[in-house]
Amino acid sequence: MTNRLAYLGPPGTYSEQAALDHDNEAVLLPFPSIPAAASAVDSGEADECVVPIENSLQGAVTFTLDLLIHDSMLVIRNELVVPINHCLIVKPGANFDEIKRVYSHPQSLGQCQKFLRKRLPRAESIASMSNAKAVEDMMESSDTAAAIAGERAASLYGGEIIERGIEDLPNNETRFVVLAHSDHPPTGLDKTSICFDFDHDSPGILYSTLGELAGRHINLLKIESRPTKQSLGRYVFLVDIEGHRQDDTVKEALESVKSQVAMFKIFGSYPLHVSSAI
Amino acid sequence: MTNRLAYLGPPGTYSEQAALDHDNEAVLLPFPSIPAAASAVDSGEADECVVPIENSLQGAVTFTLDLLIHDSMLVIRNELVVPINHCLIVKPGANFDEIKRVYSHPQSLGQCQKFLRKRLPRAESIASMSNAKAVEDMMESSDTAAAIAGERAASLYGGEIIERGIEDLPNNETRFVVLAHSDHPPTGLDKTSICFDFDHDSPGILYSTLGELAGRHINLLKIESRPTKQSLGRYVFLVDIEGHRQDDTVKEALESVKSQVAMFKIFGSYPLHVSSAI
Repeated sequence: MTNRLAYLGPPGTYSEQAALDHDNEAVLLPFPSIPAAASAVDSGEADECVVPIENSLQGAVTFTLDLLIHDSMLVIRNELVVPINHCLIVKPGANFDEIKRVYSHPQSLGQCQKFLRKRLPRAESIASMSNAKAVEDMMESSDTAAAIAGERAASLYGGEIIERGIEDLPNNETRFVVLAHSDHPPTGLDKTSICFDFDHDSPGILYSTLGELAGRHINLLKIESRPTKQSLGRYVFLVDIEGHRQDDTVKEALESVKSQVAMFKIFGSYPLHVSSAI
Repeated sequence: MTNRLAYLGPPGTYSEQAALDHDNEAVLLPFPSIPAAASAVDSGEADECVVPIENSLQGAVTFTLDLLIHDSMLVIRNELVVPINHCLIVKPGANFDEIKRVYSHPQSLGQCQKFLRKRLPRAESIASMSNAKAVEDMMESSDTAAAIAGERAASLYGGEIIERGIEDLPNNETRFVVLAHSDHPPTGLDKTSICFDFDHDSPGILYSTLGELAGRHINLLKIESRPTKQSLGRYVFLVDIEGHRQDDTVKEALESVKSQVAMFKIFGSYPLHVSSAI
């Protein structure tokens, strides 16, 4: 049966690219927000959803983390990393020297500051709601204008790419996760994401919990603390470890961690994406 | 002598509010970007700069962390937390029922989705480059329009606030740091921010490093890992601990941490802001 795959729309965004990379035969269903895409899986309207979880430059995607921590019983079944390559896009045949305005999401405009200052110092930056919308706005503009967006948005809206890779910093990539009702069976090279918090502060409490992993030679791939939003100065810890939750050692370690903490949740076990910076 | 205080402009942003909270007698100097505000301190044009480092909903501000990790010799002298209270702002006397467009930074529009869907379901969302610019855009609009921004932007540009606190999630606050050439002398209740990385992976290496703190009963206030951007799968760890780098125990612990890691940097010691979630 064809997979029904929800994603953060509109078409032409990097999220749609991630959905295609994950399953290019799926029926793609765009949703206006991350919670809406996840709800579609909850309600049975979609089988899986693809949502961004982290960008190498901007950091964590809060909506997705909150969904995993608080609001959803969905688990991570897969991860994938999409390189972010911003392109300068114009109407076919437009002259670079006549560009008067540049449309994009303010975050993308911010990521291309050096390029804009050097190559288009007199063009005005105009904010759009998304990069895909920027290409639409540019195509409808009466002035000679450009948009900053990905390749996919250019082809969807009939724009012409005149420069590629115009972002100031290299290694701009976004990690996406595939959420579903069940996680992935063991493959031999897996990763498990968990979260936990403590109901009291004490020097060394986190240290002692991490000892359950270190003592069993389980590799800690990542650790992050986030405000709990419930009370001042309290944190939820998000931890990625190597191994599958069904592996004996991992299973034993997670049981021990669980017995030491207040809240504990396994986000899922899934194949480790090895060639990624994030 | 009057303090010359650089900040991320334009006037009317939450950054200007933070600068005023820090020193309301200072000469405020707006800059177009975080690196530009820091450079002004480097060059002697300003004495200090106030920059955002973390939002309770959006997470870390990458530009500021990168500056501290890689690009600057400036240190943290102070921190302050500014509550983010989004207001709905119109031209004086405008009628709520006639609002056709709502201007703001896409991030702020995203933070007020529920309010907009419920109260202004037919209004179109229009992106602006900043919240302060949104109020300007609204004031210049020929339609009946509204802007989402803070109180300060409303008063600067002559807008009228018709609703306050319209963000969907409570506890929206931004932590700012004051950067200068030297950090803060000990006050008895201080915080020290450090970062470090390792030149090799091994299970337990982070655990053993944190043991230097836990073994001395030093409270870990926060830990975060960020991609190094130099090589795949490597992280820089950012750690906040209780105490001042001049305290004997802290000094000794930091020396031991330093001897175990590849890169090590102290971002500074400064008074602990106790009533904050982040």
